[in-house]
Order: sequence, then structure tokens, then C-alpha cells
Amino acid sequence: MALPSSLEWTGVSLKLLDQRRLPHQEHFLDLTCWQEVAEAIVAMAVRGAPAIGVAAAWGVVLAARDGADLEAAFSGLRASRPTAVNLGWALDRMAQLLADSPEASVDQFIALASWIEAEDRRLNQALVDHGVALLSPGTRALHHCHTGGIATAGVGTALGVIASAHARGLLRHAWLDETRPRLQGSALSAWELGHLGVPCTVIVDGASGLLMRRGEVDVVLVGCDRVAANGDVANKIGTYNLALAARAHGIPLYVCAPGSSIDRCTPDGDAITIEERDPEEITSMHGESITASGVRAWNPAFDITPAHLISGIITEFGVLRAPYRSALADLPLADQR
Amino acid sequence: MALPSSLEWTGVSLKLLDQRRLPHQEHFLDLTCWQEVAEAIVAMAVRGAPAIGVAAAWGVVLAARDGADLEAAFSGLRASRPTAVNLGWALDRMAQLLADSPEASVDQFIALASWIEAEDRRLNQALVDHGVALLSPGTRALHHCHTGGIATAGVGTALGVIASAHARGLLRHAWLDETRPRLQGSALSAWELGHLGVPCTVIVDGASGLLMRRGEVDVVLVGCDRVAANGDVANKIGTYNLALAARAHGIPLYVCAPGSSIDRCTPDGDAITIEERDPEEITSMHGESITASGVRAWNPAFDITPAHLISGIITEFGVLRAPYRSALADLPLADQR
Repeated sequence: MALPSSLEWTGVSLKLLDQRRLPHQEHFLDLTCWQEVAEAIVAMAVRGAPAIGVAAAWGVVLAARDGADLEAAFSGLRASRPTAVNLGWALDRMAQLLADSPEASVDQFIALASWIEAEDRRLNQALVDHGVALLSPGTRALHHCHTGGIATAGVGTALGVIASAHARGLLRHAWLDETRPRLQGSALSAWELGHLGVPCTVIVDGASGLLMRRGEVDVVLVGCDRVAANGDVANKIGTYNLALAARAHGIPLYVCAPGSSIDRCTPDGDAITIEERDPEEITSMHGESITASGVRAWNPAFDITPAHLISGIITEFGVLRAPYRSALADLPLADQR
Repeated sequence: MALPSSLEWTGVSLKLLDQRRLPHQEHFLDLTCWQEVAEAIVAMAVRGAPAIGVAAAWGVVLAARDGADLEAAFSGLRASRPTAVNLGWALDRMAQLLADSPEASVDQFIALASWIEAEDRRLNQALVDHGVALLSPGTRALHHCHTGGIATAGVGTALGVIASAHARGLLRHAWLDETRPRLQGSALSAWELGHLGVPCTVIVDGASGLLMRRGEVDVVLVGCDRVAANGDVANKIGTYNLALAARAHGIPLYVCAPGSSIDRCTPDGDAITIEERDPEEITSMHGESITASGVRAWNPAFDITPAHLISGIITEFGVLRAPYRSALADLPLADQR
């Protein structure tokens, strides 16, 4: 069994998995101009910072092939998700090509976009290999949110480690937090692992403690939104509660963090601004109210897991251990942001 | 503002709030014979052990008034929810009246049912008063699941403490865990507190740690399904994770436990069998699938919070403190079960 690719250059267009329709439909968009790519990013048909960056690179290719106004394409694509780190990085690379070679051919743009895509896949695989090396045969892993292949051009981060451990015969079972309010665990992660034939079971986020108490969890694997200079991690809401439960049971928790998510300019978790999303994500489901009427809800997208609860940070460079400040400082990162 | 009563004897029938239609509709059933009471219990129109016990007592009254076969009424009502402790207790009381006075009048049955209802209300209020005495002015309380008045004939347990603290000017804010999978917090508890004008905000269960980390919680108040002889508590899934987060932040967690939920015949939490419910409660909402297809889910109804994480057990007799084994052993309970 295999997972559909999140995106694929067909030679004339960008074939993009429409993540909005998952898990119920596997529908692909056929994007034939840069504006369609920008629209797909705005509309969240493509999600996950790495996948967005690669899609934007192919958007520039489409603009170059069509003889479109490249400056307009760059600014249009950049504006499609202003906070996405990898998007800025991928577009900067493409713009550098244009600056270096104002007469660059379409084939040169294609070659660079292919390289950006392959580089994402290579870095992703390196991270996964470092993660799998931590696991013993018979591992039962617990995972939060969605960190899978469709968020990248490759195999995903924490979920990639789980899938790869299964492929290498090391995994006994995967437990998936459903991850309220948006249910990325029971929708996307379960869909991916189902495609890959990985044995998995969904639980509500509040059931992880009982599961650990029963001795059913050997390791917790999560992704991250951002790692601060001291090793504090911002990740999907619920990660901190999970980390506290893991610590209470002496179960290691590893955070999978590609270099692009490491932000050494932010001193610690308290300096990270936490996005607060629409309360309706909590009070309704599929457009229907699921709470009492007039209910107020607080909907932070992320929480902060302090460094002392993290057993290791898995990157493409290797597994970092505490003290994280020096381990992170030693990484060969560009700190572009 | 006031909360509708969960049940009320009208003089000719039992008026019962249909909890299945909450929070969207406040609909009352008018039950005129014991079979309708039994049906309402089976169909979960009435929920909460105390409310079920009182409803069953009124069912016996209806049978006596109608000159029905009382033996059939007792066994029919008893079978309507075989595991409900208070139901057995209320029916035993009514049966004792019949055994003592085979010619008992309908008025005698009415008087006893009224006493059972008033007794439930009195014990409930005693528990709540002990709980409120623990709180300081300006308290911000976090609550899990639903423990409110409609589960009893009175004001509820943990949610009753919160409502009562508000009425006495001690409460600054109530935070409500939505409580997956059945969302009793965002549906029932939010509905009750809304009726009572108590300021409250719903969060997803995974957000309690972040809330505590931000210093927004002074106390955690929960109910319980069962308390074992050593003070371990079985309560709605997610309670244990919440207790671990509270302990990590030095926030007191109190369990509200009416005497009827204290089971000194069960040595500890590990001896409590945890009901596993239909996985569909996790994989669908309002009959619609919310996960990938073919997903497996594990749906334990309760978890175990070990005694060492509990700051106090609030009962109608007072607040018990560790060591719980001796504190529980000293309670004047009948241990009928």
C-alpha cells in the first residue's frame, strides 16, 4: 500500500492532493497557472509548511512557462500564506535564480523546483532515519495531531518515523490522539496510516493517561510548530498535557523538528505568540452546533511544552539532547528569519 | 435565572426533563404510569444516578395509585438500569414500606417518595456547602464532564459547588472541559451554567495545561463515578490527565463524591472495571462520520485518578483528606452493595 503524493509535477501542470476533501475523498487538483497555485494555498487545499513551499516553487515554474509577469507571481504567491517559513525560503531560492540569470530558461526553473522538492524529501528522510534509530522492536508509539507525508513532499516527520518503523518491522502499534478541535489525528493521521497498512487505534485526547497507566505506550512522538532557543516547543494544543502524562509515567517524548521550525531568535516558549482561532471550531461540527447555545469557547491553536519535558529533539542533523540551548546553537542553520 | 428541575411530581404524574434533547430543546415528558418511568430510564431520558433513583421512587407511586401489580413494577423498574446504585437503594426503601405495611395507602407511598427526593436534595446541598467552604473570593475553577443539578434532584455536585460559589460572590470564572467524546461539558454543563448566569468558557480537553501554565486556574473540581477504599477515583475519561496537569502546577484538585459513590468493598482503582463504549462515539458525530473510513477507536468511559493526586474528597459528611483509607473507613456508610 502507498500514500498518494501531496503534489506532483506532471510536465505541464501541478497535480495537487486537495487536503480539504480528506479523509473522505482523494481528489486531485490540476493547477495550470501560478494564480491557481496561489489560490490553492490560500484556500488550504495544500497544508503543511514544507508542502506549501514546494507548491509555491512549482507556481513560479508555471509563471515562467506562461511568460507571466514574474514579479506579480512572486508577490502573489508570497502573499498566499504570509507566515509560512518554507514558502518564503522556496520563493527566495527561485527569485535568486532570476536575479543571477535574468534570462533563465523554463528548464532552469524546473530544475530548481525539482531540487527544492528533492531537498525537502531528503531532509525529511534524514530526520525520519534519526528517529527510527531510537526505537526498539515491538514499539508502541503514541502520536498527536498530524505530521504525515501529505504535509511535506516526503514521508512526514513524527508520523513518518512511525510509518518507517512499521516498514522496518519495529512497530507493534500506533495510538493516535484524535486531536481536538480539528481532529487531525482521527482524520488525517488515521487516513495516512490506513493507506500504509500500519496498525493503529484512535483515542480521545483525554485517554492518553489511562493508556500509559496500563503500560500500553513505549514512546510519544510529536511534531512541532516552532522550537525556541532554549528547547521549549510550540505544537498543536494538547501536546503539553500529553507531555505531562508521559513524564509522570517515565515514557520518553520526542519532538520531530525540521531545521526550518527551529527559531533561535525566540528565547523561550513564553516569547511565542499563540494563535487563537475561531471558537466555532469547538462549538460546531460540519456546520452544526454541538454545544449549548450562546456558549463561549477559548480556542488556542498551540500550547508550549517546556524543554525539561522533552527527551530529545529529532532533526535532520541528528537527535538533540538537553541542554538544548547549546545543542540548538551548534546546528548549522541559516537563521534567515 | 433558574435551572429547570430534572423531575417534579405534579400530584397526578411525574414531569421529567428529557435530557436526550438537551441542550437544544427543553422538553418535559409527562409520565402517567410506572411503565413510562421505566421506559424513560432505559431510554436515558433521565440520567445521573441520584435523579434515576428519585424517578424510580415516583414510578412506584404511580403503580400504587393505579392499583398495578407492585411486584411487577418493582422488578420492571429495577431492571431499567441494573447498575445504578441509587435506583436499587430507592426501590429498597419503597419495598420496605410495602413489607412493613402491606396495606400502605397511596399517600404513604407519596410521602416516602417525597422524603427520598428531599433527602437527595439535602445530602447534595450538604456536599455543596462543604465544597464552597474551600473556595476563596475570586476563584477561577476548572471542571470536567457534567455533574450538575439535572443529574440529581438538587443542585449537582462539582458543578453545584461552582454555581453556589457564584451565587455567594466567590467565583470569578468557570472553565469547562468540553469532555470528549460525548461533550457533556460543552453541552450540559455549559447549558446549566448559562441558565444560572455563571460566567463560563469551554475549552478542548487538551487545553487545560496551557490554561494552568498561564495562571488562569485556581482549583479543579470534578465529580466521580466511584471512589475505592484507598481513595483512588474512577471518573469520566480525561480526569486523570487533568489531575496530572493540576499536580504539575500545584493547583488543588477536589473530587465531589456523594456517599452513594463510595465503594469500600473495592480495594483500589486497579480493581475497578472500566466500561468500554461504542467506538462510534469517537468516529462519528450526529450520525455523520468524522474520521477516515475503517478507523479503529478505543473508547473507555472512565479513567482512574490515583489518590495521591487528589487534594480532598468532598462528601456530604465533610471534606476528606489523605490518608484516605482511614478517612473513608470512618464514614457512617451502610455499604449496602
